[in-house]
Order: sequence, then C-alpha cells, then structure tokens
Amino acid sequence: MSMLEKFTKIRLLAFDLDGVLTNGKILLAENGNWLRQMDIKDGFALQLAVKKGLKVVVISGSNSLQVEERLNKLGVKHFFQNVKIKSDCLSQFAHNHQINAESIMFMGDDIPDLSAFTVSGLRACPADACQEIKEKSDYISTKNGGDGCVREIIEKVMRAQGIWDNHSEVSSI
Amino acid sequence: MSMLEKFTKIRLLAFDLDGVLTNGKILLAENGNWLRQMDIKDGFALQLAVKKGLKVVVISGSNSLQVEERLNKLGVKHFFQNVKIKSDCLSQFAHNHQINAESIMFMGDDIPDLSAFTVSGLRACPADACQEIKEKSDYISTKNGGDGCVREIIEKVMRAQGIWDNHSEVSSI
Amino acid sequence: MSMLEKFTKIRLLAFDLDGVLTNGKILLAENGNWLRQMDIKDGFALQLAVKKGLKVVVISGSNSLQVEERLNKLGVKHFFQNVKIKSDCLSQFAHNHQINAESIMFMGDDIPDLSAFTVSGLRACPADACQEIKEKSDYISTKNGGDGCVREIIEKVMRAQGIWDNHSEVSSI
Amino acid sequence: MSMLEKFTKIRLLAFDLDGVLTNGKILLAENGNWLRQMDIKDGFALQLAVKKGLKVVVISGSNSLQVEERLNKLGVKHFFQNVKIKSDCLSQFAHNHQINAESIMFMGDDIPDLSAFTVSGLRACPADACQEIKEKSDYISTKNGGDGCVREIIEKVMRAQGIWDNHSEVSSI
Repeated sequence: MSMLEKFTKIRLLAFDLDGVLTNGKILLAENGNWLRQMDIKDGFALQLAVKKGLKVVVISGSNSLQVEERLNKLGVKHFFQNVKIKSDCLSQFAHNHQINAESIMFMGDDIPDLSAFTVSGLRACPADACQEIKEKSDYISTKNGGDGCVREIIEKVMRAQGIWDNHSEVSSI
Repeated sequence: MSMLEKFTKIRLLAFDLDGVLTNGKILLAENGNWLRQMDIKDGFALQLAVKKGLKVVVISGSNSLQVEERLNKLGVKHFFQNVKIKSDCLSQFAHNHQINAESIMFMGDDIPDLSAFTVSGLRACPADACQEIKEKSDYISTKNGGDGCVREIIEKVMRAQGIWDNHSEVSSI
Repeated sequence: MSMLEKFTKIRLLAFDLDGVLTNGKILLAENGNWLRQMDIKDGFALQLAVKKGLKVVVISGSNSLQVEERLNKLGVKHFFQNVKIKSDCLSQFAHNHQINAESIMFMGDDIPDLSAFTVSGLRACPADACQEIKEKSDYISTKNGGDGCVREIIEKVMRAQGIWDNHSEVSSI
Repeated sequence: MSMLEKFTKIRLLAFDLDGVLTNGKILLAENGNWLRQMDIKDGFALQLAVKKGLKVVVISGSNSLQVEERLNKLGVKHFFQNVKIKSDCLSQFAHNHQINAESIMFMGDDIPDLSAFTVSGLRACPADACQEIKEKSDYISTKNGGDGCVREIIEKVMRAQGIWDNHSEVSSI
C-alpha cells in the first residue's frame, strides 16, 4: 500500500503530547507548574481536522490542565493523561469508535510511544524523534516536535482525502 | 511595477500577530493565560514607522491583553482582535482612512491571512510562512516570524520612502 | 581503555545543572524567580538509569526549588545546590558510596565544572560547552545542553552495559 | 592599533541589555511584566570581570527590576535604565571614573546603540546585530545576543590582559 493510500484510509489522528505537540521542553515555573509551548499553525490544522469529522486524540504519560484547556478550545475533546500503556488506551478508544487499525495514524517521538505504534496502521514521528521511533515510522516529518510536525501530517492526510479546504470558519488561535 | 515602486506607495502597514509579530508559539501559563514572545528590533521599527506618519495595524484571530499593552507602548493604536474575516477588517480600516489597496502592505503567515492578501497591494510573509501564503506573496522575508521579519519589511518600505532616519527619538523597549 | 570499556565501568552518572540539564538560559520572572527549561527525553533516560540501579547525581553552583521538585519526580534523589567546589562534593559522594574514579561519569559545560573532571574517570560535555571543558572531555555529545546531551550519554552508558531495555515501567513526564 | 592592543587597553566593559545580554526577545507575562532570558556562561564572565577589577556597565533604553536583581547578584552595580541618549550616559560615567575613550568597550546590537559607539574605543556587537551596527563595529562576535556574545568579548579582553584565570571563586549562577 502506498503512502497516499495509507493517508486516504485514516479516520483517527492520534498524537503524543511532549515532543510532538510541544518541543519536548518544559519550563519549570512556581508551585511545581510545568509550562509547555505549542504551535499556532499546528492548532489551525487540529481545528480543521475536527471540523471535517476526523477523530483527534492526544495521549500523554504526563498531565497538564493548561494543555487540556487549549485542546478544548481547539475542539479536541479526547485528551488522555497519565497513560501508562499507550497501546491499551489507543486500541480501546478505536474499538469504542469502531475504527480499525489501518484507519489509525499515531505520531510519537520517544520510547513510550512504541506501544501505540503496534496498534496503528500509519506510524509517524517528528524529525527529532528518538532513533527507536524513527526506525519504526512509516512517515518521518520534515519538522521538529512543537514546530509544525502536527500540521504537516494532518495536512498530508487531509489533502489525500480532498478535505484540506473551506478553511474560512477556522481562525488561528 | 517594481518592488521598489510598490514600497514607495505604502501608507498602511498591516500585520498578523501570531507567526509574524511572534514566533507562532504560545507558552501555556496558569489561568488559561497564553504568553507570547515579541522581538525588540521589530519594536524599534514599529515605533519609528508610527512617528514618521505611517499607519500601523495589527489584525489577529486571537486576542491578548498583554500584546495590546505592548503595542500601545510602541505607539500602535490599532489592534483588532478576535477577527474572523481579515479582509473585511482591513478594507474597512483602509476605507475609513481613505487608503487605497496599492498603499496597503499586509504581512501574514497562515491560511486565515489569505483573505487580507486580496485587499492589499503588497503581500509579504515571514520565511517560515505556510506554503499557500508563500505562493501568493510579493515579498518573502529572509527572517522568520517573531525574529525580525517585521523589522525587515518596515525598514525596506521606509528606506524606499527615504524616511528611515532621525531615529534619535526612539528607544529600544 | 576504549570508550566502550569506559562506559561499561560507570556506576555513577553525575551532571552539572545549567547548560547540561538545561540550555544554560534562565528566564527572569517575578520575585527574583529564575525559570529553567528541561528536556523530556533527558527525563526519560534519568528515570530509567535510576530504575536500573545506576547512581544519579546533579551538582550545581546555583539553586532551584523547581529543579529539585522535578528531579525528585524523576527519581533523582541527590541534588547538591550552591556547591562551591564540585570536585569536593563529587568525591565525597563517591567515597560514601564506595565508588572509585573510573566508575564516575561527570558531564559539565563551563569552567566551574573543571574541578569535577579531576575526580571522574569519564569526562563528558554537551556540544556547546566552553572551550576549556571541550579540551578536557573524553566524550563530546552531539547534542547541546538541555537538548538531549544527557539522554545521549546515559543511553551510551546503558547500552554498553546491556541495560537500555525493559523501559515499559517508565513514562515520559 | 591591532585588535589585541585594543583589548589590552580596556578598563570599562559596557553593554546594551536587549539583544546583547538577552536574545532580544521579551515574553509578555501578566500585569505588563516582560520576561527576559539571560545566559549563564555570560554571567560567569561578568562575575569574573568584576572580581578582576574591570568596570562593568549595562545601559538600556528599557527597564527591568528582574534584570537589575540578577546583575546585582553577578556583582554588576552599574545598570542605567530608561536611557535616551546612550553616549551621554556612557561618557558621563567614564568621565566620573577617569576612563578615556580608548579604554571603553561598548557592545550593542541596534540603532539606539550607535551613539554609544561614538564615545568608545572598541566597538563590538553580536552576530545578529542590525546592519548599521555591524558596519561600525571593530569586533563582530561569532555568537548571537543572549547566546554567548558577552562571554566571548569579555574572555577576549581578559585573555589579552592575562587575567582570564583564577576562576575558582566564581560559581555559575
């Protein structure tokens, strides 16, 4: 199956948080608060994907109220936090929504993401993912984590499906 | 019309916020506060442009009290927030100030900025703008968003008009 | 002794804080609070090293409650702050834990780290360390401070010892 | 006069703040607070210069209580804020301390720093200074603002004077 064919089958876009939706850094603020940085162009694509009917899920071994709030504003309702085994979380979600493996795209950047790869038909990663992840990826983004890799894979999938259009209802926020 | 001729006609400098006046990233702080980063050299050019009589406008699909405060300190009085259709906002402002299209420079970096391009005589973008924007730009900056692209286009326009001088009243703030 | 042999002997992984576990920058916040940035992939490796029984120590001439809290969450219990002479601190710790010099890896990036090099069998530094440190290093990372140099050296040491595996108990946090 | 000779004559090290001691960016936080980022290796050099008897001055068109506090901790007592004409401030300080022009090094990055160049014997700038500044600089650092340019020029000057040594009393903070 060609990459383009893989893209056309995707119904569920699943992402790791740190190093994918962020640059993999945390800023250590007061009261044990860890601040993360997110990309506005990624946010545009996430909003559009949701509006066009694709399922969008974020799965993290960590947790962040601030990320939850931002994802909510972008229309991303499924944010699983403090997840130990990502494959379990992802396959359960897919099962509940009757989505089979070849319709799942998962993008991760580090070893805890390897398990999610085992239940995903399309495995993707940012340019600065760890070696183990890169070796198992079908698609390695030209962009780093937190710097456009999420936008890139969403755009590729939506263009393949002919739904990267009618953006006029989406603002950059 | 050459680029230099285009520059000489500009009376209104209009900018998108995220990805143009910032690096397109937001830092997720407490209480749903999103922190943005701005460039001091950009700020110098914005101040000088206002002092020399050019109109400066910032148009964003998002909103930020902190950005509003900084723009005010720089002398930029026109900051339109939560804008859905940027072309409407920009053409309305231009109409009110009797500025025609060929005197409008607009710099944007992502798809929601495309509409503003349709009412602007000079279309510009940072080096890291999205592909759709780059393809429609008359001038692609050598600098990225939040890293000098605003300074560069303002300086180009003001040099073409012979008013990039007498900076002594402007401080870097 | 080859680099691989050196790696196999390491029982104590010791790190400077600023410029090694961080990018060497501080963000000046209110109330004299200095915010530091740390890397999530580094954090994964630190957790795994501790779980596999390696000793992990951080030695800083500065201090930070926020760093202390994060290191604790990663399982790193030994964080020495406000240290004047790093060699004294490191050799005392090694003595208390009956670890000899050839089993000590120390990674530093600036002149105050030179003293710790004198009591360490394996001297390492990030790619952007100062010249004096680079000249005395056995291993210069391909990564900068705060951007993966800690992950890289830990992974090298643990692979050499055959213990870079069974990561399933470790989450990226 | 060779560069080395120029370095040996310096008794006063003067710096702009934004874009020299910082990366020229500000993070817009709550309550109109603008957060700046500083470099730890720069801080090491500033401390050492003061301990070795060189005068160190920072001159800014802006202001920051947080920067003032950090500079104080580094031993830098002379921080002039909200300065309109930097040449006036610098020449007044030099006059009061009986330091003549050829003993003054000033490092700046943008147009408001040009006036300070006119009263300094050694003009320096970071690699990412604006064009006008670069053209008038005797020494262009290989490092950007906030990323080691301050360390580099201090080290060059102190090495030329044979006083880049006995660092053991200085910690990285």
